[in-house]
Amino acid sequence: MAEIRMMQRILASNDALAEKQLSLLNRHRVLSINIMSGPGAGKTSLVERTVQALKDRYRLWVIEGDIQGDLDARRVVAQGAGCTQLNTQGACHLDGMMLEPVFARLELEGLDLLIIENVGNLVCPAEFRLPAHYNVTLISTPEGSDKPVKYPLMFSKSDVIIINKIDLLPHVDFSIEQFSRAVRRLKPRVPIIQLSCRTGAGLREWFDWLEGALKRFHRKTARKRE
Amino acid sequence: MAEIRMMQRILASNDALAEKQLSLLNRHRVLSINIMSGPGAGKTSLVERTVQALKDRYRLWVIEGDIQGDLDARRVVAQGAGCTQLNTQGACHLDGMMLEPVFARLELEGLDLLIIENVGNLVCPAEFRLPAHYNVTLISTPEGSDKPVKYPLMFSKSDVIIINKIDLLPHVDFSIEQFSRAVRRLKPRVPIIQLSCRTGAGLREWFDWLEGALKRFHRKTARKRE
Repeated sequence: MAEIRMMQRILASNDALAEKQLSLLNRHRVLSINIMSGPGAGKTSLVERTVQALKDRYRLWVIEGDIQGDLDARRVVAQGAGCTQLNTQGACHLDGMMLEPVFARLELEGLDLLIIENVGNLVCPAEFRLPAHYNVTLISTPEGSDKPVKYPLMFSKSDVIIINKIDLLPHVDFSIEQFSRAVRRLKPRVPIIQLSCRTGAGLREWFDWLEGALKRFHRKTARKRE
Repeated sequence: MAEIRMMQRILASNDALAEKQLSLLNRHRVLSINIMSGPGAGKTSLVERTVQALKDRYRLWVIEGDIQGDLDARRVVAQGAGCTQLNTQGACHLDGMMLEPVFARLELEGLDLLIIENVGNLVCPAEFRLPAHYNVTLISTPEGSDKPVKYPLMFSKSDVIIINKIDLLPHVDFSIEQFSRAVRRLKPRVPIIQLSCRTGAGLREWFDWLEGALKRFHRKTARKRE
C-alpha cells in the first residue's frame, strides 16, 4: 500500500508541475505537442518532416527525450530546428521534473511550437502528464493492428493518432480497419492519420492538422489577451 | 534520495525472489528463457514457431506477460502448448512478485522448457531479473539499426539476440552490420540470429541454439544429481 500511495504522490506532483509549465507556455503563446510511440515507430522521422515543412512559417523548438545519446537531436538540428537533447539516464519516460531544467533555459519569447519527443515506449510515457496541449501517438504498420487492445492507456490519452510506415502495408499483416476499430473503442472521435515518413505519402494531412491546431491556439490565446 | 533507496530495495528483493524461483526450476530440471522486445517486434510469433517446432520432443509451458487481455495466450494455446496469461494491469514489465502466483500453480514435474514472454517494452523489463537461464532480446528490422545505442541496458543483459522480420530488409533502412557492431560494443560475443517468423527463414538457427541450450542444461543438471 505504501508503494501505491508513493506512486500516487509522484504522479500528483508531476501533474502540478506539468500544469505550471503549461501555464508558462500559454503565457508565451507557445503550442506544445508530446509525441509518443514504441521504439522505432518513426517519431524522429516525423519530427524531421515536420521541421522541414513548417520551419519557414513558424518558430519551432524540439526537446528530444532519450535514455542516452544524442543521435536524434543531431538528426533534428540537421533539419534546421533548435533542439534540446534530454537524457533520462535509464528512465523509461519523460516527466515534469526532467523538463524543469530545460524549461529554465528555453527562450519561449517568439516561439510558436514546442515539439516534445518522448522516450520510445508504449507503456510508461502515457502515465506521466507533460506540458503539452496535444498528445500524439504514433504506431507503425509492422507492429500489428492489436496494439490498442494491448496498450490501451497510451491510445486513451491521445488526441491524434498517426499510423506510420503505410508504404510497408503490402508486406506486413496490418489491418487499418481492425486497428481503427480498436482505437475508436477507447476514444470514439480521435483523428487517425495514415502516412509514411519515408515516402511522404499522407504527410499533408498531418501538417494540416498541426497548422489547424496552431491557428486555433493563436486565436484562443489572442482573445484571452484582449 | 528516498526514492532511489526504495527502488534499490525493490530491485534487491526482486533479485532474491528470482533466485528462489530459479532454484525451483533447477531442482525440476526445467530450462527457462525470458523473451524481451519492444511492442510488435514478434515475440509471440517466435513463441508460436518455437512451440510448433519443439512440442513433439519437449514438454513446454509458456507464460504470456501482457498489460491486459489474453490475445497472445490464445495464439500460443492454438499451437498446442500449455500457457498462463499474466496480466500486469498497467505495469510495464514482469517481475518476481507477479510470477509468484503463477509458480505456485505451475506443474514443473516433467516439464523441459519454460518460455516467459515479457511485456512489450525495450526499457523496463531489462531492469527486473526473472527466473530465467537465458535472456533473449528480439529486434525487428523496421525498428532501425540504432536501437542498441538508444536502449543499451536491454542489449547488455541479453544472452542471445534475434533480428526478426528479415523479409522486410529490402523495404526498410536497417543495416545488419551497423546493428551488430553496436550490439558487440555492448556485449562482444553475444550470438545474433537473423530470421523471419513470417517466412520461416533462419528459424533453424534459433531452434538449434535453443536445443543446444536444452542439451547443455540437461547434462549439467544430470551431473549435479549424481
